[in-house]
Amino acid sequence: MISSSVLFYGIYVLCLCLGLLCVVFVSYWNIEWRGGFAWDASFLQFNWHPVLMVTGLVVLYGNAAILYRIPFTWSQRKQHWKLVHASLMLSSLFLSILGLCAVFDFHTGYHIPNLYSLHSWVGICTVVLFTVQWVLGLVGFLSPCSPLGFRKLLKPVHAWMGMAIFILSLASSLSGINEKLLLALDGNSNSTAAYSSHPAEALFANFLGVLIVAFGLVVLGILSNQRWNRLEPEQESSRSLLPEDN
Amino acid sequence: MISSSVLFYGIYVLCLCLGLLCVVFVSYWNIEWRGGFAWDASFLQFNWHPVLMVTGLVVLYGNAAILYRIPFTWSQRKQHWKLVHASLMLSSLFLSILGLCAVFDFHTGYHIPNLYSLHSWVGICTVVLFTVQWVLGLVGFLSPCSPLGFRKLLKPVHAWMGMAIFILSLASSLSGINEKLLLALDGNSNSTAAYSSHPAEALFANFLGVLIVAFGLVVLGILSNQRWNRLEPEQESSRSLLPEDN
Repeated sequence: MISSSVLFYGIYVLCLCLGLLCVVFVSYWNIEWRGGFAWDASFLQFNWHPVLMVTGLVVLYGNAAILYRIPFTWSQRKQHWKLVHASLMLSSLFLSILGLCAVFDFHTGYHIPNLYSLHSWVGICTVVLFTVQWVLGLVGFLSPCSPLGFRKLLKPVHAWMGMAIFILSLASSLSGINEKLLLALDGNSNSTAAYSSHPAEALFANFLGVLIVAFGLVVLGILSNQRWNRLEPEQESSRSLLPEDN
Repeated sequence: MISSSVLFYGIYVLCLCLGLLCVVFVSYWNIEWRGGFAWDASFLQFNWHPVLMVTGLVVLYGNAAILYRIPFTWSQRKQHWKLVHASLMLSSLFLSILGLCAVFDFHTGYHIPNLYSLHSWVGICTVVLFTVQWVLGLVGFLSPCSPLGFRKLLKPVHAWMGMAIFILSLASSLSGINEKLLLALDGNSNSTAAYSSHPAEALFANFLGVLIVAFGLVVLGILSNQRWNRLEPEQESSRSLLPEDN
């Protein structure tokens, strides 16, 4: 039998590779077929939106979520890894908000209403929930005056909210790529091949969606495996007990 | 403190209500704004697609997934509930395949290519994975000649695949509603108000998306709570041990 740690690191490397591929694919899509990037309220500013959301809200978030599951970290002080987790999540939140600014600025420039599609509703809810989650996490788990009873109560909510935000970010990304391709390829004011004629851009961006799904399922697989939960010192004696590390 | 079972039943009633609302909303949307239903390869046949997918692949699937978590079932023979679980999942699979037939027939009638959008790629993968999962579940857990070692190996894979399929079904539904609204409201050949002008249909269908998200998160919340796992007889002595019921 492969040991649990070896299996973890195998899956972890797969997760890192898939995450990297997501960032490469979303960047290449926007450089090769959408004209690249600018910050001038034009279509080129919009192109930052998918890149920042996939990089921040999917890849960085997913990697920050599984940080405590890395066996290497189990023997070290949890407080250090809490700070790394919070910093990675803050970077993820920062990139996500920047990604929202990119699309809002573009909408303002072209007089397009904000927040009309279901994609935008799910996306904005994801970022709002993420902000609430980060602040609650800071107050509950990093503030020295947070009482132990509150931490114990908050922990399962934090874990469930964390998973919920990640699932919403996956759904937002997939619906967003689909929406962008429908608007860009089937819109009235362009000369590109229709989405339904399977042009190279559509196949490439659809494949980006498949990579995001694969990355998301690997992250959720790691999170749902009880064997890779970090144990507190008093629980080290048995790996079969349900861990509860606050 | 509220007891664990009382809390479960409170959340379970919420889950049932949200599921029922999803079915009512998706049906009303297609009756009120999309012209109702038929099975004649027309637009009216397409309307069965969202109704059957939301009812089968989201609501029925979600309810079948949490069946073993109902405390009422814990004191009864698991074999009976396995049959109920398998039957509900088979009904869900049947409705999903019927939902795919609805859209394929419509596409054939209007000479629209199949499987070009990311929504359709994610959707078809979901139904294929679901079919594989159902067959593997039947062979592994209901066949009397399935060896215990195979069941033990299959169980975590079955649970993870089950969660993955449900998450993919949520992502497919949200991207599908978004795609339908973009095509129906912003298409060239109609006189409806644009999606971006927030017409009543768009708000209603977006709200259906919010209901699907809420239903999905409640189901995933139930599935991720270890306290509501069914325990095998030899594990009944302690609720704090990690259950392993094959």
